[in-house]
Amino acid sequence: MSLIQIYDTTLRDGTQSEGFTLSAHDKLRVARRLDELGIAFIEGGWPGSNPKDAEFFERAREMEWKTALITAFGSTCRVKGGPEDDANIQALLNAHTPVCTLFGKTWNLHVTEVLLTTLDDNLRIIEQSIAYLRAAGRRVIYDAEHFFDGFKADPVYAVETLKAAVRGGAETVVLCDTNGGTLPWEAESIIREMKAAIQHPFGIHTHNDSECAAINALIAVREGATQVQGTINGVGERCGNANLCSIMANLELKMGRRCLPDGGLEKLSELSHFVDEVANVTPNDHLPYVGKSAFAHKGGVHVAAMRRCEQSYQHVAPEQVGNKMRVVVSALSGRANIISKAEEHGVAVGSAVDVAGVLKDVKELEARGFSFEAAEASVAMMLKRQQPDYKPVFELIDFLVNVEHRQGRGIFAEAMVKVKVGDEVLHTAAEGNGPVNALDLALRKALIGHYPQISAFNLADYKVRILDGQNGTDAITRVLIDTRNTTRLWSTVGASANIIEASWQALVDAVEYGLSVAH
Amino acid sequence: MSLIQIYDTTLRDGTQSEGFTLSAHDKLRVARRLDELGIAFIEGGWPGSNPKDAEFFERAREMEWKTALITAFGSTCRVKGGPEDDANIQALLNAHTPVCTLFGKTWNLHVTEVLLTTLDDNLRIIEQSIAYLRAAGRRVIYDAEHFFDGFKADPVYAVETLKAAVRGGAETVVLCDTNGGTLPWEAESIIREMKAAIQHPFGIHTHNDSECAAINALIAVREGATQVQGTINGVGERCGNANLCSIMANLELKMGRRCLPDGGLEKLSELSHFVDEVANVTPNDHLPYVGKSAFAHKGGVHVAAMRRCEQSYQHVAPEQVGNKMRVVVSALSGRANIISKAEEHGVAVGSAVDVAGVLKDVKELEARGFSFEAAEASVAMMLKRQQPDYKPVFELIDFLVNVEHRQGRGIFAEAMVKVKVGDEVLHTAAEGNGPVNALDLALRKALIGHYPQISAFNLADYKVRILDGQNGTDAITRVLIDTRNTTRLWSTVGASANIIEASWQALVDAVEYGLSVAH
Repeated sequence: MSLIQIYDTTLRDGTQSEGFTLSAHDKLRVARRLDELGIAFIEGGWPGSNPKDAEFFERAREMEWKTALITAFGSTCRVKGGPEDDANIQALLNAHTPVCTLFGKTWNLHVTEVLLTTLDDNLRIIEQSIAYLRAAGRRVIYDAEHFFDGFKADPVYAVETLKAAVRGGAETVVLCDTNGGTLPWEAESIIREMKAAIQHPFGIHTHNDSECAAINALIAVREGATQVQGTINGVGERCGNANLCSIMANLELKMGRRCLPDGGLEKLSELSHFVDEVANVTPNDHLPYVGKSAFAHKGGVHVAAMRRCEQSYQHVAPEQVGNKMRVVVSALSGRANIISKAEEHGVAVGSAVDVAGVLKDVKELEARGFSFEAAEASVAMMLKRQQPDYKPVFELIDFLVNVEHRQGRGIFAEAMVKVKVGDEVLHTAAEGNGPVNALDLALRKALIGHYPQISAFNLADYKVRILDGQNGTDAITRVLIDTRNTTRLWSTVGASANIIEASWQALVDAVEYGLSVAH
Repeated sequence: MSLIQIYDTTLRDGTQSEGFTLSAHDKLRVARRLDELGIAFIEGGWPGSNPKDAEFFERAREMEWKTALITAFGSTCRVKGGPEDDANIQALLNAHTPVCTLFGKTWNLHVTEVLLTTLDDNLRIIEQSIAYLRAAGRRVIYDAEHFFDGFKADPVYAVETLKAAVRGGAETVVLCDTNGGTLPWEAESIIREMKAAIQHPFGIHTHNDSECAAINALIAVREGATQVQGTINGVGERCGNANLCSIMANLELKMGRRCLPDGGLEKLSELSHFVDEVANVTPNDHLPYVGKSAFAHKGGVHVAAMRRCEQSYQHVAPEQVGNKMRVVVSALSGRANIISKAEEHGVAVGSAVDVAGVLKDVKELEARGFSFEAAEASVAMMLKRQQPDYKPVFELIDFLVNVEHRQGRGIFAEAMVKVKVGDEVLHTAAEGNGPVNALDLALRKALIGHYPQISAFNLADYKVRILDGQNGTDAITRVLIDTRNTTRLWSTVGASANIIEASWQALVDAVEYGLSVAH
């Protein structure tokens, strides 16, 4: 059986989710990871709709992709005028992607009440828009918006819209449950009726408003769908899109259908957490397969049974999806993780590096609010500090940060730093557009004489989260800093009740790590 | 058709969820609300397992219940000795509930490898334990643990365990997908085979490890199940139990099956939020039917379509489950979004409120880094400030924030605030565990004399992001603050290159909005 095509729309439909936003840079980082997993299609955005998406496509064009084809999303052209005069269609072409995904109306109600046109004109613009993109050399996927609701209202017309898309040259027609209201047995019978009326490769795109998005996608695959659209962690407008994490795991582990290259599925949990970290949203620990709690056992009875027989309380082996079994009461060993991290960062794991000690530190720090999943440079620094020849770049003596608003003068921020480099004490001050920036600049001033390469370091991103918000003002603040120079980007972490202290910790790791790799 | 019995296990299986705990008092509050909704059975806990549950049953006995029967949960007696010598069974009796729910082993693997007994002895203790409770005057529900896995391993033995339960006197046998690994078509065919072998009222209890818990429960109802077990919001061990919120809404609104008395379903969203509040966990805004985002529309195209035709982007009317349609204000908004918001906040949209002006402000501020989609209180304040009778709560003169690290003394943060309330100038200072906390405390000190209700405001969450980090240190910082008092939670936003200024903006909106709604 052929591979099921996985079509990821985290970067487009996912960002329609309330509270989930990605910058162009974030989108590129996520796309890179999706490609590494082995996803077939990555929908990058809607080029006509905002400048952020235009930037994504421009930069994506210059990158190399292993398995993924980048797709650009847009709507059929306007009823008046043809595709050649349509700004949206032109923006799609200008995105220069190998594939375009076009959506059009299936539901007669939407054609007449929302699009305010005739049923015939709608068929015409579907066919015309697709044919135009095909003539320009693009592969085209057609998303039949509201397919299931449209089919319920008028099955003949719904099928006619698919036929128009096929005539236009769409390689796949995708059945969308846009409002997420369809139950699986309805989906099944509608797909069967559709197949009796038209034979063409089809895909499925579902939403979770009835808590059936993932299963509706799997039902469609059983009925012959060759493509599944969804998002990582099921993010998306309202209740979200179909969760690709659950879908891919169910397909490969339970339905005997492949959708990823060898080794892909084992990166699933890591990818899930990476997306949350990049978007700066709190992960849902209870997500099937990939959640931190998905294989965590709290009850004493369960834990005892697990020790007798692993299979007794888990439906698959967590390693298959890159997750791990956790016993909530007792810590599990993670020596292997630390050792592979050490190797990754070129730290020799000999007698000098206390792997168990680093592991213990990681666990203690995570318990205090640190999170090392997206902060590999901080882990690397913990390992490097274990090496016998390690010397700190500098030693902190004092710092002071001041932010002042005075009527008539506006706001300003300044910082003072006193550090020791070798035997020299350096005492510097700087103004910044904010306190962390001021601190960063004062520290650079102190170090630049000894380490001129620091001038190429840039703060690329700075993310802050309050952990356990219930504790109100006593809560721990976690800071993630992304730093880059001309050739690479690295991430560090700090955590403290004081945001400035947490920022300082992350800043110090960022500077030390940067200096250790950029000579 | 008769009512489907809803069996809630939030208080027992739900509390097996990592991060979800309830005190005995919390349990009683939740049980009261479940009863008001019209739930048939409320499983209060496992009396043998901890003193908290014992306290719950003692106090529950003295309360009056409208529709609900309280049930106590426990396991079959030990293989050696009978139920009369079994501490667990005795604790069940001592809970004095009208109903007991007993679970037993179905899967041959578990009998021999975990329970370490024989298949025959397992049948004996199932029948014996139930019969003993029946003789003591209890109604008994039997939970067949691992029913689906057990059936796959040995269908004949799995059915034998159910028959033993029926012989003992169980009124309902409940098919449990304990490990959550069963897909709906497997569940369907196993239930059909089971029905061919034994005719007795049956229920369903599912877990969400394959993201199929809710749909498996609905499949069972289609196959004739009379009872559905699950939890509010789907809390539970690992990936959670079946989410009763989705199940009850799907049953009543889409499958024509009643499970609640009249008016019950309309209390669903409130109940969902209440459970999160009592357990002090962050609500999942994207939950089907009951989540804050379940009927929220972000795209301008969607909002315009919704105003033309409500049905166009929602699968049910949100009022049916006590939720509401929300318009998310963002850069993608049109006039329609702003007018909807103004109406929501009771701001008369007359000549005094310049809708186009507010829309223009929203877009300009979003271009500068603000994000209003998660900051409704800031949008409300923009609208309120347009009203002719608007008076600011206070006027800022100066503020100063100081964070200092001194060798040997560690780190500390303090703030000074000078504001004008009416004609009075207030000048205050405070220390905090971080700069924003210090600023917040100093501002509260200044205002509390005039506005004592401010003492009930709590910082619930604080999120910071650097936008378009490519700009390095010139980047804009966006701050989102969630504030709550005893009855509500509101969100505000600020954006500036200076994190303290951005925090201050969000803090000011939070205080002003809070004071405008909390008298």
